[in-house]
This record gives sequence, structure tokens and C-alpha cells, in this order.
Amino acid sequence: METPATGGLTIREADDRDRDAIWEMFRATVAPGDSFVYYPNTPREEAMAYWFAKGTRTYVAERDGQILGSYILRPNRPGLGDHVSNAGFMVAPAARRAGIGRFMGEHALNEARRLGYRAMQFNFVISTNETAVRLWQQLGFRIVGTLPGAFRHAQKGFVDAYVMYRLL
Amino acid sequence: METPATGGLTIREADDRDRDAIWEMFRATVAPGDSFVYYPNTPREEAMAYWFAKGTRTYVAERDGQILGSYILRPNRPGLGDHVSNAGFMVAPAARRAGIGRFMGEHALNEARRLGYRAMQFNFVISTNETAVRLWQQLGFRIVGTLPGAFRHAQKGFVDAYVMYRLL
Repeated sequence: METPATGGLTIREADDRDRDAIWEMFRATVAPGDSFVYYPNTPREEAMAYWFAKGTRTYVAERDGQILGSYILRPNRPGLGDHVSNAGFMVAPAARRAGIGRFMGEHALNEARRLGYRAMQFNFVISTNETAVRLWQQLGFRIVGTLPGAFRHAQKGFVDAYVMYRLL
Repeated sequence: METPATGGLTIREADDRDRDAIWEMFRATVAPGDSFVYYPNTPREEAMAYWFAKGTRTYVAERDGQILGSYILRPNRPGLGDHVSNAGFMVAPAARRAGIGRFMGEHALNEARRLGYRAMQFNFVISTNETAVRLWQQLGFRIVGTLPGAFRHAQKGFVDAYVMYRLL
């Protein structure tokens, strides 16, 4: 019997000691300019202000003390829209294609339910990031909107971004 | 010949002296809980932090020294999405149904072009706010996404919100 690639993986809320690992992951994630809206040269301070913003819950996925992924969960809108959650995900480059994104996605959906949210929305899934689009579809998200040319892809120029949504 | 209802109306960037008038308009706009995502009881400090946020341009429409409307213009996303603008609009209750929203909408599209944006996106147009939906359609916006039940309407409960978009 094969050990699942996510065996031994645990998810917990992040704390200040995780900032270095999260920053390394952030830097690697934005570097190619093909899947994240933040600039490849985003300064650490701006990245941390986003990932640890007030009102945002920050989680890390770790195994044997190593941080392999991180995600954030927050209301997508304030006030009369705060029953819809929003989440963002990163996986460490060396740990990709091992199910960690899916593991975190399922965890995020459960957390969102536990916290009383009624839906989850992604505002800006890059259409050319097929791995992400497929993963979110497999987790029950639908493309509910297409934003024409809304992302400046480092190689491909202006490409569409999707709004994806699922009820919980 | 009829004088247009927007005759004598001018638009300029807001300054600190406009804060009281903007706050009154904001309070009146959120009070019914039917068209704006902010809570009816949003504190002034939070409203002003939103309307005068860093990176946001704030405009007022005035006639004879009276502030009749206000709008904000900003990048809808940071980084590799900052070529798409976002705008938000408010009209003073006593000045509604007089074309001030349209006047500001056209001004915003011109400002966005002047500033080099390539598109404008509204993230959260309440589907039951037919006046707004029709106005934006008349100004060239399309509904590119529907967010099921994303707004808690004070009278109607969960209603859809639209993502609207137009190239510039």
C-alpha cells in the first residue's frame, strides 16, 4: 500500500516563527509572474502585510517541522457580504505536485464551514494556471465569471482571470 | 430648452474639507442595507478609511458649493492586475434621479483612461439595484459574473451580486 504524499502533513494556524518560511514561499510563488497577482519583486513587508492582515487567518501545512504550504482565510467582503469567505494558497516549490494544495483546500473549506461562512469565492484565478483551475473545480468550485485580460502574464501577456465560487 | 439636471455640476478631487459631506452621504447610502456592502451602522472612521484609502483617488461632484455626489477610483488589484481600475459611487439622497451618477460614471471612465488603465471592474453590484445595473450597462459595462447569494439584503435576504466589466 502506498503512503499518500500528504501522510504526516498537519495544518495549524501560523505564528511569527513561520514568517521566514512563508516569505521564502511567497517569493518563489510570485517570481515567475504566471499565477499570482503580486509583483515578482514585491517587498517582504508588503507580502507579510497581505498574508498576515488584520481579519485574515493564516495557516501553515507542515511535516517534520518543515513548512510546505500556507493559506489564508478571510471574509471576501466586509459588512453585508461577510458570509462569503475568500482564501489564497501557496505551496513550497520543492513540495509541489504532491497533493498539498488539495489538502489545504479541503482544510480551508472545512475551516470556512466551521467559522460559519456560507460560501467561498476566489476573485482572481489565472486562466492559464490549469492546475489550479482543475483543482478548484474538483473541490466543487465553478467558474462564475471571466475577467477579460485582467492579468499581465510574464510570458503570455494579457490573459483572462476567473472568479470561482462554491456554496458550503 | 430644458437645462440639463447636471448643469452647473463640476467634479474635482476631494480634500479634507469634504469629509463631513462625504460622511453624511455614506451614512445615507448604507442606511437602507440594499445597495452597498458596508453595514448600515458602519462607523465614520471605517467609512473614511475606505473612501480615502492610500492608493485611492477620491472625487466630489458639486454645484454652488454643495457636494451632491462622490466617487473613488483605484486599481482593482495590486501588481500584475493593476491595469484594471475599480470605482465606487454615492449620490446624496436629495440629488438622486438627476443624472449625477451617470455624470460621475462618465467622468470616472475618462479619468481611468487618462491614468492609463485598460479596463474598469465593479466587483459587487447588487442584482436587485436595477437602477445601478442599468446605468452601468448603458455606460458599456457587461455582467461578466454572478455571485450567488453574496449580498444579505435588508429586506430580501440573500441576493446575487454581479461582477461588471468594461474595456476602456
